[in-house]
Amino acid sequence: MNALTTITLKAPYLLLVGAETDPTYAKTGLGIVQWRPERVLGQLRFPGCGIDLGVPDFTVAEAAAAGCGSLVIGVAPVGGRVPESWWDVIAEAARAGLDIVSGLHLRLAERPGLSEAAAAGGGRLVDVRVPPKDLPVGTGKPRTGKRILTVAADCAIGKKYTALALARDLVAAGVDASFRATGQTGIMIAGEGVPIDAVVADFISGAAETLSPAADPDHVDVIEGQGSIFHPGYSGVSLGLLHGAQPDAFVVCHDPLREVISGWPHYALPPLEQVIEDHVHFGRRTNPDIRCIGVSVNTSRLEPGQRDAVLAELSDRTGLPCVDPLVDGTGAIVKRFLQGA
Amino acid sequence: MNALTTITLKAPYLLLVGAETDPTYAKTGLGIVQWRPERVLGQLRFPGCGIDLGVPDFTVAEAAAAGCGSLVIGVAPVGGRVPESWWDVIAEAARAGLDIVSGLHLRLAERPGLSEAAAAGGGRLVDVRVPPKDLPVGTGKPRTGKRILTVAADCAIGKKYTALALARDLVAAGVDASFRATGQTGIMIAGEGVPIDAVVADFISGAAETLSPAADPDHVDVIEGQGSIFHPGYSGVSLGLLHGAQPDAFVVCHDPLREVISGWPHYALPPLEQVIEDHVHFGRRTNPDIRCIGVSVNTSRLEPGQRDAVLAELSDRTGLPCVDPLVDGTGAIVKRFLQGA
Repeated sequence: MNALTTITLKAPYLLLVGAETDPTYAKTGLGIVQWRPERVLGQLRFPGCGIDLGVPDFTVAEAAAAGCGSLVIGVAPVGGRVPESWWDVIAEAARAGLDIVSGLHLRLAERPGLSEAAAAGGGRLVDVRVPPKDLPVGTGKPRTGKRILTVAADCAIGKKYTALALARDLVAAGVDASFRATGQTGIMIAGEGVPIDAVVADFISGAAETLSPAADPDHVDVIEGQGSIFHPGYSGVSLGLLHGAQPDAFVVCHDPLREVISGWPHYALPPLEQVIEDHVHFGRRTNPDIRCIGVSVNTSRLEPGQRDAVLAELSDRTGLPCVDPLVDGTGAIVKRFLQGA
Repeated sequence: MNALTTITLKAPYLLLVGAETDPTYAKTGLGIVQWRPERVLGQLRFPGCGIDLGVPDFTVAEAAAAGCGSLVIGVAPVGGRVPESWWDVIAEAARAGLDIVSGLHLRLAERPGLSEAAAAGGGRLVDVRVPPKDLPVGTGKPRTGKRILTVAADCAIGKKYTALALARDLVAAGVDASFRATGQTGIMIAGEGVPIDAVVADFISGAAETLSPAADPDHVDVIEGQGSIFHPGYSGVSLGLLHGAQPDAFVVCHDPLREVISGWPHYALPPLEQVIEDHVHFGRRTNPDIRCIGVSVNTSRLEPGQRDAVLAELSDRTGLPCVDPLVDGTGAIVKRFLQGA
């Protein structure tokens, strides 16, 4: 990817866990350790911290001496803010020359003194919510390489996880594949990407083109979807991403128990068949060969014993491999993709 | 509209034409005089100016004395820049207390000295390309009042003109109607609006909701469309606008001689029937009663004598009133809308 039009992070990371006690808020750190352990140097924890990411503990000085590239704020508490007391350590890391990487609402440069600390240390302040400048308008021109996009009828339904699992399982099958991140957690995991929902509206599809550029014919980019073309708040993001990604194939992320858009209860989710049909219909505009290769199902809320029947029923309805990536992996979907079916 | 989430301009305007000689570049000024003469105080021309907007000439001092609200930079030259020599007059107007209104690429505050001039005069620097802050995410909730959106298969095909003509013809038919602007020229004409292609992607439909808020049941907002859901560069803007506008009705703007997307010659335009069908399909997501009420046809490039046959053929194909708004007005479409058909 072009470093001018994507965010790129410097590894290895020191993951700031601080005094966090609730694993829910340490998801980003946990995700990085799970998916990219090779990018992680260690964790920085304060007394009273109730979480262990399972990597070595470092102080800022130790991490700097060990060649650490970035202090990554690996927690995302309610409101997107960290406790006031953490900022001393963040400034210390900046003075020590580490890049500071944040997905917080507050822009790092707005924190008094932090820009000066970074200037003194020679590192960067990287807000992964802030898109790169100079994004182009989408051209819609065909490009080499293959692309898979994860889509859904709603937000927060497994698009990032599924894309990561697909990329992992493609690599395991011997394919040259990359995960392409479009959201802040995905960017921290991958170490690069574009926060597609934060770009200026005119550049959504251009950002998606930049994110998954022309590649070797056998290379596969697995692109993290965002939002939904059916979402009354975010459909623009999702259609621009669909058109810019020009996917050869897509995977629908599905929760069999979800009936309405989360937070928009006056909007029923469309049936799975319509989700597939409409993505094929609109996706054809920029890739005439687009096809659905499978359904990624969140079965975690199903009663024990229901799981197999639900997956079988979805598979009957769609004629596609339907898997829970957490339980089954995505091998069945990868197989279908590689068969070109 | 909410002044915090839309741009609002202060009338009456002094239109800066400068030394422009090519009417093509004075389109904004001409459009304001054509559609909103009541908002225009006069024009400011330099020696050698080859254009007359047909309104009185004023100096900055005369305009200020006459209660002028804004100096509107009424030209949009190639590259979005004005000649260096014009900036003295712009600064003079700022010092005299006029708002400065610009659609130029350069943000007004980036012009050295201009912020100080505005502060001294007490007026504002208004960049109509810069969206207001604090736009909300779209809720998708039904709202009172009626809305008509102009749509198309491509950009620059008559969506602004058609929306202005529809609003005018609705008012002429006794309807309480407003034109709602989504682009910079439209905003300068209407005196308010949101530049929808410049908002952050997550807020496209929220901006559209803000732009056309709940209104009296009989009120009609006619919303200027942007881009196209079929456009490989701008489809995200257009789908977000469609979903946020929640139009009860839409009008397709059509050029019978255009075969490909302007500037994207590798993209054929979809047939008119598909443009209608897909807008109904996706528009239903936020307004189940959406319908197409007519086609606005640009017949200016047709051979003499072809016009009637082309309109009749389009009308046969679609079963809808098909008019050239420049020649026929939009009365036939307004009639159909008011009949509820």
